[in-house]
Order: sequence, then structure tokens, then C-alpha cells
Amino acid sequence: MTTNRTIRLKARPSGMVGPEHFDFAEEAMPVAGDGELLVKTGFISLDPAMRGWLNEGKSYIPPVGIGEVMRAGTVGEVVASNADGFAPGDWVAGIWGVQTYAAVAAKDVHKIDTGLAPPERWLGALGMPGMTAYFGILDVGALKDGETVVVSAAAGAVGGLVGQIAKVKGCHVVGIAGGAEKCSYVVNELGFDACVDYKEDGVLKALATACPKGVDVYFDNVGGPILEAAMTLLRRGARVVICGAISGYNDFSKIQGPRNYLNLLVQRARMEGFVVFDYEARYGEAIRDIAGWLQSGKVKAKEDIQHGIERFPEVLQMLFKGENFGKLILKP
Amino acid sequence: MTTNRTIRLKARPSGMVGPEHFDFAEEAMPVAGDGELLVKTGFISLDPAMRGWLNEGKSYIPPVGIGEVMRAGTVGEVVASNADGFAPGDWVAGIWGVQTYAAVAAKDVHKIDTGLAPPERWLGALGMPGMTAYFGILDVGALKDGETVVVSAAAGAVGGLVGQIAKVKGCHVVGIAGGAEKCSYVVNELGFDACVDYKEDGVLKALATACPKGVDVYFDNVGGPILEAAMTLLRRGARVVICGAISGYNDFSKIQGPRNYLNLLVQRARMEGFVVFDYEARYGEAIRDIAGWLQSGKVKAKEDIQHGIERFPEVLQMLFKGENFGKLILKP
Repeated sequence: MTTNRTIRLKARPSGMVGPEHFDFAEEAMPVAGDGELLVKTGFISLDPAMRGWLNEGKSYIPPVGIGEVMRAGTVGEVVASNADGFAPGDWVAGIWGVQTYAAVAAKDVHKIDTGLAPPERWLGALGMPGMTAYFGILDVGALKDGETVVVSAAAGAVGGLVGQIAKVKGCHVVGIAGGAEKCSYVVNELGFDACVDYKEDGVLKALATACPKGVDVYFDNVGGPILEAAMTLLRRGARVVICGAISGYNDFSKIQGPRNYLNLLVQRARMEGFVVFDYEARYGEAIRDIAGWLQSGKVKAKEDIQHGIERFPEVLQMLFKGENFGKLILKP
Repeated sequence: MTTNRTIRLKARPSGMVGPEHFDFAEEAMPVAGDGELLVKTGFISLDPAMRGWLNEGKSYIPPVGIGEVMRAGTVGEVVASNADGFAPGDWVAGIWGVQTYAAVAAKDVHKIDTGLAPPERWLGALGMPGMTAYFGILDVGALKDGETVVVSAAAGAVGGLVGQIAKVKGCHVVGIAGGAEKCSYVVNELGFDACVDYKEDGVLKALATACPKGVDVYFDNVGGPILEAAMTLLRRGARVVICGAISGYNDFSKIQGPRNYLNLLVQRARMEGFVVFDYEARYGEAIRDIAGWLQSGKVKAKEDIQHGIERFPEVLQMLFKGENFGKLILKP
């Protein structure tokens, strides 16, 4: 046996999160109690929502406590089992955080089928980002065939899937991403109809050109001026799906609401937020559909796998700097 | 016969609308052509939306043209008829604008039953404000029994009805209005459970106290900091109905979006705009319900009737200064 290597929250960031807010430690191996499993972490998910979990105060889940292991979605292999129905060698998914081993209650994890997709994909297309994309665009966005869909952070884990699902549903799909390389990937690899580079001038004009009929569904991961640009182009009866606002996560005091929100009135449109956990009872439906699309090649999954648990803080920063390409994952 | 007195748009305002933007004139009497009626204007409706009609550019209806009679909802008496089904003495409602007489196509007006309610009420509780309140709170707001409803401009034509309809539906209803006199009217005359004076300090705290369970439906007529305060208190699954934003109508450049719009995500809430004209096919349903509530005393209507067509510009300003009390109407 070896030690458990952990990343614990040391201090709450007030601006950009960085290495100064975390402690890396080597600790004693955890021991699985009754009904628990000892799992070895295979892959750790890095998500924009993590930044929100570091802030004090009420949100949709409690913040990570100072001194606690950093919360993260995880997949791993069962090393020892004190619970019925689980055996060493099983792969499970859970939220046991940024550590190389964990003792977790069997009720807090679920088995994943590594025959259907490799383990890391259960943190991406078949994990939270996949569930978020699926229910966000189909349920909250109430997508209809042939509509025009715009999605920001289109080269990211959620955005890339949202657009691909919309293509499966016969929509005209336009991404927004940062830089020529990402835009090329979004169009040529993921099959979007167009992609607007938000780092270039004239985002609104480029978006208007790419959406000649206007925008029926805008799926927002970023907030800020990009949200405003998309809202300028809403069509009658449009839906704006608020999934996140990564541009503001490191400084909530700078978040602006969309100044053109009255376009919701002019266009009889709605803006709606959601939290994927509310759809837990329906995850099976999403996994079945997405796995089918992956197998038939209609949807592609891409993971950006970084290595070394001690690099967690800098890898997390990649998300907020827009440096990742596909689903960002840490292999400890 | 006499002359037709008119108010025509002289110049587009860039800030607060005022007398300098209109011309008052005495003109020749209009003549009713085939299929038309000559009507004598009984009452003219003054509405916040008028400010939007003065701006150049695309909106839900075209702007009023320079030199045109100012658009306004109107009721009046038929003086001469060249159309089947209409006779002198009939009362009709239409949108023939700020003038004492008009020749209007019979297809552009509808008869009103002055036995059911006096003519001016067909510009208020049984007119556009009534339709706006009814479909806004029941249809867009998707009101459910026992919910907590907050409405701004609660002493105004739409707000006062929204709250009273919500009371009919068994809700806990809190108004927001300017000044002690209006707040007293909203609670004591209209029967709201509470009313917060936005001219006092501590609006958010007062609103939180008045809504101990939080806010299920917020019906917004004003925008700005009041919208933000209400959005801070949203409950899970809340609906924000965007009816207007009078605080910004005279200077669109100053409109801010709600900085806390991400609360839509945390609370799985939605913000939705609407335009009452979309409900035209269902106006009969609303008139039937509202007339019934008026007759049974469950809902009270109040009109603030000003006199003199030449005073139109200053009376219009009363709306934006919050000086009216109930539905603002001009008797020419």
C-alpha cells in the first residue's frame, strides 16, 4: 500500500483561484468501513462550477469547507469492498474529490460500464457535462427541429455536446469559442455549421451573419458581452438557457446582467436557469441516447487529460483562461 | 360641427418626453369614408408603452411617425356611420390616437358595453391594462394557489390589477409603490397583504420581511434596482414576468440588466417577456372574468382622469414621474 495524496481547500479566493488557495498533502490511506468501498481514483473532473463551490454562502449546494478535500466528480476502481454488490475491479463514479484514494459509501457511487465507454468519458459525454448538455438543450431549451441554436464555450465539454445534440435534432448550429484553432475544431470536428471567434472584433456582426434567421435557442455558458450579443438576435419565442457564466466566476462583483434583457419582452422570449442534479432520475435516458450517438459516430467526445494531482490548481486555472480543449480531466 | 383638435409628434425625444416633442393643432373635421365611422373621442389612454412608440427602430410595433397623430388607445361615441352594424350613439374602442374626432375603419374598432362598465373603464380594467394584467400573471406567470406574488408599480393600472387577481387566486400578494399614500391605497383599498415603499431605504429588507417564504412570481413593470431586489428573493422554480421597465423608458442607455440574473440558475427560475396583443383571441375570456370580479366587488378599478387634450404632454409625464394613481386617462 501507499499513501493517499490529497488537495484540500486552504483559503477562499476572492478573485482568480490559484495555487495559494489549496494544500497538497500526503496522508494516511483511508479505510473502508461498513457499507463502504475503498476506491482508487482513476480520473478527476475539472468543471467551471468548482469556482462557485469555493465561495462562502448559500447556493445550490453548500460550499467546500476550509480544510476539506476539494470537491470533484470522479471515477475510479474499487480496491476493497465492504458493501454488497461491489467487488474489487469494479469501476464506479462519484464525487469523492481531489484525492488518489477514498473510502466512500456504496450508496454515494454508481457503477459505470467501461465496456460502453472508457472510464474518463463517464466524466464527460456520459457524465455531468453530458447530462447538463442533454437536459439543458432538450428540456430547458425545448429545442425544435430546424431551429437556430447558438452555444458559447463551444469547444468545451458542455458546449461541444449541446451543439452536436442540436445537429442530431436537425438544427442550424453556431458555436462561439476563443481562437481560430478552437473554431476550426468546432466546425470541422464537431460538425457545427459555423463558429464565431469571440477574441476577434465584431462578434455581434459575425453572429448575425452566421444566424440569418436570428436565434431560437441560446445556450449560455459564459455570460457578459457574449450573452448580450446573442440576446440582441433573439427571434420571436426564443429561449435563453442559463447554464453558467464562467466570465464572471472569479469576480462576482463584476457580473453585469444583460442590458438588453427587455428584448425578452419584444420577442416574447424567456431566459431560464437550471441545475443538472434536478434531472438525476432521468440520467439513464440521457446516457442511453448519448452512448448511442457516440457509437454511431453522430456525436464525438473529446477529453483534455492533464496529469499529476499536485497540478490541480494550475489545471483548474486552464478552465478560466479558456485553455482547455474538450472536457478537462486530471489523471492523478 | 366643430374642428378636430389633435396632438401630433413633432420630434423624437432622446431623454424625458415633454411638450417640446408634440404639436397641438386645430384641424378640419375628418370625414368618414366607405366602411368607416366618424367617432368623437370620449377618453384617451396614457400608457408607459407610449414612450417606446416614440423611439426610432424596430420593436413589437412600428414607431409613431413624425407629423402623425400620437398613437393612443381610445374609446368614443359613433357620430356618423358608413359601416354595417354601427349606428350613431354606439360606443367603440380602438387605437385612433390623441385627437377629438377620427374617421376609423369599422374593422379597426370594437363595440363596448357601457352598461357593463362606464366607457373609461374599457381603457383600464377591461382594456389593455386589464388584458395585460390577466394574461401576464395567469398565463406567463403561471400562477398557482397559495404562492407569493410581488408586483411593482402596484398603484398603477396594470400592477393594481395583477395583485388583485392574485388575491382572487388565493395568493400572498406584496406590492411595491412610491410613497406612503400609494402604499396605503394598495393595502387598504386594493387588499394587498403588504406594500413596500421604494422611496424609503431598505427596499430589499422590507421586501424580504413581507415575503417570508420568498417570491414565487415577480411581475415587473419597472426594471432597475427593484427588479434586482425582487430577484434576490426568488424561490425554487420562480417566474419573473417582464411586462415593462418604466424606470428606463426615457433613457435606454442607462438600462442595466439584473446583475443577479444567475439567481435564475441557482433557483431554477425563469424570466419571460410578453406582449399583450398576442392574446387578442382570448380577450373575451379575460373581460368575462374581470367584469365578474368587478361586479362581485372582488376587484376594484380606479381611474385617474385628467382633462384637456392640449395637456397631453404634461399628463404623459405624470406616468414617468410616478404621479398617477390608478389608470391614467385623458378626457379631451
